[in-house]
Amino acid sequence: MSVSYSPSHVCRTSQVSRWDAETDVVVVGFGIAGACAAIEASQAGARVTIYEVAAASGGSSALSGGEFYLGGNGGTPVQNAAGFQDSTEDFRTYLRMAGGPGADLARIDLYADHAVSHFQWLKDQGVPFKGTFLPGKWLEPMTDDTLIWSGSEAAWPFSAKAKPAPRGHAAQMEGMGAGKLIMEMLTERALGLGAEAHFSTRVLSLIADENNAVHGVVVRIDGEPRFVRAKKGVVLCAGGFICNQDMLKRFAPAALEAAERPTTGGNDDGSGIRMGMSVGGAVTHMEQFFATKPSFPPDNMVRGIFVNERGQRFINEDAYHGRVTQYIMRQPNGRAWLLMDNAIFARPEFFPDVHIAAAGETWAEVEQELGIPAGELQHTVDAYNRYATAGQDPVQHKDAKWMQPLTESPFAALSFCAEDYPATGFTLGGLVTQPSGEVLDADGAPVAGLYAAGRTACGLPRWGEGYSSGMSLGDSSFFGRQAGISVARR
Amino acid sequence: MSVSYSPSHVCRTSQVSRWDAETDVVVVGFGIAGACAAIEASQAGARVTIYEVAAASGGSSALSGGEFYLGGNGGTPVQNAAGFQDSTEDFRTYLRMAGGPGADLARIDLYADHAVSHFQWLKDQGVPFKGTFLPGKWLEPMTDDTLIWSGSEAAWPFSAKAKPAPRGHAAQMEGMGAGKLIMEMLTERALGLGAEAHFSTRVLSLIADENNAVHGVVVRIDGEPRFVRAKKGVVLCAGGFICNQDMLKRFAPAALEAAERPTTGGNDDGSGIRMGMSVGGAVTHMEQFFATKPSFPPDNMVRGIFVNERGQRFINEDAYHGRVTQYIMRQPNGRAWLLMDNAIFARPEFFPDVHIAAAGETWAEVEQELGIPAGELQHTVDAYNRYATAGQDPVQHKDAKWMQPLTESPFAALSFCAEDYPATGFTLGGLVTQPSGEVLDADGAPVAGLYAAGRTACGLPRWGEGYSSGMSLGDSSFFGRQAGISVARR
Repeated sequence: MSVSYSPSHVCRTSQVSRWDAETDVVVVGFGIAGACAAIEASQAGARVTIYEVAAASGGSSALSGGEFYLGGNGGTPVQNAAGFQDSTEDFRTYLRMAGGPGADLARIDLYADHAVSHFQWLKDQGVPFKGTFLPGKWLEPMTDDTLIWSGSEAAWPFSAKAKPAPRGHAAQMEGMGAGKLIMEMLTERALGLGAEAHFSTRVLSLIADENNAVHGVVVRIDGEPRFVRAKKGVVLCAGGFICNQDMLKRFAPAALEAAERPTTGGNDDGSGIRMGMSVGGAVTHMEQFFATKPSFPPDNMVRGIFVNERGQRFINEDAYHGRVTQYIMRQPNGRAWLLMDNAIFARPEFFPDVHIAAAGETWAEVEQELGIPAGELQHTVDAYNRYATAGQDPVQHKDAKWMQPLTESPFAALSFCAEDYPATGFTLGGLVTQPSGEVLDADGAPVAGLYAAGRTACGLPRWGEGYSSGMSLGDSSFFGRQAGISVARR
Repeated sequence: MSVSYSPSHVCRTSQVSRWDAETDVVVVGFGIAGACAAIEASQAGARVTIYEVAAASGGSSALSGGEFYLGGNGGTPVQNAAGFQDSTEDFRTYLRMAGGPGADLARIDLYADHAVSHFQWLKDQGVPFKGTFLPGKWLEPMTDDTLIWSGSEAAWPFSAKAKPAPRGHAAQMEGMGAGKLIMEMLTERALGLGAEAHFSTRVLSLIADENNAVHGVVVRIDGEPRFVRAKKGVVLCAGGFICNQDMLKRFAPAALEAAERPTTGGNDDGSGIRMGMSVGGAVTHMEQFFATKPSFPPDNMVRGIFVNERGQRFINEDAYHGRVTQYIMRQPNGRAWLLMDNAIFARPEFFPDVHIAAAGETWAEVEQELGIPAGELQHTVDAYNRYATAGQDPVQHKDAKWMQPLTESPFAALSFCAEDYPATGFTLGGLVTQPSGEVLDADGAPVAGLYAAGRTACGLPRWGEGYSSGMSLGDSSFFGRQAGISVARR
C-alpha cells in the first residue's frame, strides 16, 4: 500500500512501523530561526537534527538586509556611541504600537527586556557589527555601517508616544544583503556545536500520537519516507507562505499583489504552518503581510507628498516605507502618486524607471492630467504648502524636518499605482506560540512537543502597518533561541 | 481517572469505551444553519440529533431582523411584483464585490444560481412573506413588508458594476426581529420531520479516529460526558465567536470595539470553530467582522456627510450602514462626525441620544469646535456643496439622489466617534468549507465526516466592508441545507 504524506495530514505513531533515526530535537528549516534554535538547543546538550529543503542553509534570511531591530535598556552600545539613549519603556511602547490590534504583549515585554543582551549574543556567535551610525533614510545601509533609522520611530503617531531612536542594527558588509553573511556565521556556529544538518531534505509531515503530542517527523530521503523520532520535540522554522498561491488566496488574499515579486528564498510554502495546524495548532493574523514599494532613498523622496485619486493625502510621508505602502495599497483602486516639485525632484533609487504619470507648469495641470476632481489636488497642495511654511502639518503630522513648500515648477506626479509599481513582500501570519516557542491550540493549551519560530509563528511583526526593517530577523533570532532553550529543557 | 474535554482537544475513538447513543447525523447548534441542515438531512431519510446549548432553539438567528439576501434568475416573485428585474449575473457580481479579497467564488456561483428557488423553499417550510416592497433606507422593515434595499446595491462602487436591485427579503412581522418567527417555523419543521433535539446540552468535543475522520461527539448530559456516535457525520452550526474575548483578542482584535454590544444570542463562543480546528480544519478571514453604528433611518441622515478629524470625507454616505461603520472605525483615532445642516437635521432613530459634538452658525465654527485644522472642513463642505448642486460627486461618488447643499444654518456635527457611539456586531471568520459544507484542512482536503455552516464556517459574508443585511441568514439557511443534503448522502 502506498501512503502519501502531506503537511496537513499528521502521521500517527501507530502508523510508524520502525524509527529510521532518532534525535532529541528536530529543527525544520535552516533559516535564522532554525539556526538560533539549533545553537541554543545544542549548547544545552541536546542532539539536534536540522532538515532543510534547500541545498544550503540560509532560507529567506540569507536574502535579507541583515538588520536586527534592537534597543531598550538605555540603548545598545552602538546606539549609545551615536549619542542615542533608548529606554526599555520607549522601546516597548514602540513595539506595542507596531504590533497593532492584537499585539503580543508577553512577547514584546520579553524582547524589550533582553534585546541589548541579544545583540551581544549575536556578536558572540560571530556576527560582525562595525558599530557606526548612518544618518538619513535608508532601506538598509549600502555602506558597512551598523545603525540606521529602520522604521517609523521618528514619524507620527509613534514619535508622539515613544521617544524616537534608530534601532536597525545591520551586520558589517558593503552593499546590500548582509543577511547572507549572518547566515554563514550562524550556520558555522550551529554545526560547530554539533547540530547535524540534512540539506535538500523535505519534511513531509509531523508524527504525533492520538492526543496530538508530537514525537517526530516524516522526512523524504532518497525519495523514500523516513521516520525520525524527536525525543524532546520538533521546532518548526520553515518560514511563511508567500510562495503558496493557494494559501494566499485562502488566507491572505490582499497579499497577492505583493506575491508576484515575493521577498523569499523560494521555500516559503507554508508547510511549517500547515504541519502545526495538522495537530490542532491555531493560527492568527493570517491576512497580514509586509509589503513595500520603496520610495526612498534618496531623502528627497520623503519631501514629496502622496495623494490618492481623490486628491487627498492619506499618510505622513516620513513614515516607514512599508507602512506607506500598506496605505497606498488600500487607496481607492490601489492608486496613489508622489507629488514633487522641481526643487526636490528625484527618482526612487530602487525603482528609477518609475512612471511619471503627470507633469505640468501648474498643479492644476497635474491635477487634470491625473483625472483628479478639479480643485481637490490644488487644495491639498495649497494647504500642504501653508503647513510646510508654518513648519507644522496638522492633517497628517509629517515632521517639519521633511516639509518644504512644493512651489517650484515644473511639477510632477510619480506613479505608485498597483499597475505601475508592484510591491514586494512576505507574510506575517502564522502559528500561535508562547514566547517560549510552544505552539498553542485554539483554547490556548500547548501542543506537546511542538515549537515554532520565525515566520512559521506569528511573532512580533504581525501588522503590515507597523513593520520596521529588522523586526523579522530580530524576532526570528531571539524567539528561535527561546524555542531552542525550551525544547532542550524538555 | 478524570478526563476533561475541550473543543480544541479531540477525543479519539480509541478512548471511547462505549457509545451511549447512536444516530446518523449530529447537528451542533439549533440556529438557522442547524435547523436547515436538520430539515434536509431528515428529509433525505437520515436520523438526525441536534444538540443545542441553550434552553431553546433559535440562537443568534432568532434575534436577527429575519431578512434573507436573495435575487438573480430574473428576480424573486417579490422583486418582480415591485417592478425589479434581477439577473443572475448582476446578483453574482454584487456578491463577488461584497465578498472582498478572497471571495468564495464557488459558493457565490451556487448561491446566485439557486437563491430564487431557495426563497420558495423557505416559503414551503412555512416562513411567511407578505410580498410587498418598502422604499427608503431601513435597517430592517418595521412594517410587515417583505422587500427592502438592505445593502450597498445602489451605492458606488457596487452600482457601477452591477445593476442595483433590492434583495433583502424579510419574514412577515410588524416591528423588528422577525428572526424569532423564522426560527419558530424552521424548528417546528425540523422536529416535525423527526429530528431529535436536546436542549441545554453542550457538545464538549469531537470524536475522531487517528486519521482525524470524525465519528461523533462528546456531549454533557446530566453533568456527565456521553459518547454519541454519528454514523454519517457531524455538522457544526454553533455560530461565531463574538462572545469569546480570548478568541477575539487572538483572532479578531479589531472586532473588540463591537464586542461590548455584541449581536448574539449569547452562545457565539467559537466552540464550533475550535472543534473544527482540533481535527485539522483550516480557518480563514478570522479577523473579519460585521459591525454597525446605525445612522439611518430616517433617510435624512443619508443626506449628511461624514468627515474624519482631518476634515476629509472618506465614504459615500449612501453605502450600507455596516460598510460606513467599517470605514468610521478605521479613521484616525476612530473618530468621525456626520455633518448636517438645518434643512436635513435629524437624529438616528436607533440612537436618538447621539452626541452633538459641535454646532454653529458657520462651518468654520463647527470646524474649530471639532478641532479640525483650519480650512480643511470648510474646503470639504464647499466642494461637497458644489458637487451637490451639480448633482455629481466625483470624490466619493455618492448618488445625486442623496445630495443637497448643506447651506442652511445652524450646522451640526453628530458624533460617531468610538467613545460616543459604540458599534454592535458579530464575527465573519470561520472554518474553510466546500459549498457542500465539507470542512477542509489547510491543504484543501476534506476532513472526513465533518461539515460546517452558519457563522461557524466562513461563508458568503466574509468581509465587513461588503456585508449586507440578509447575507448571514441567506448564507446560513442555504448552506445549512447543502450540509444537510451532503451528510445524509454519505
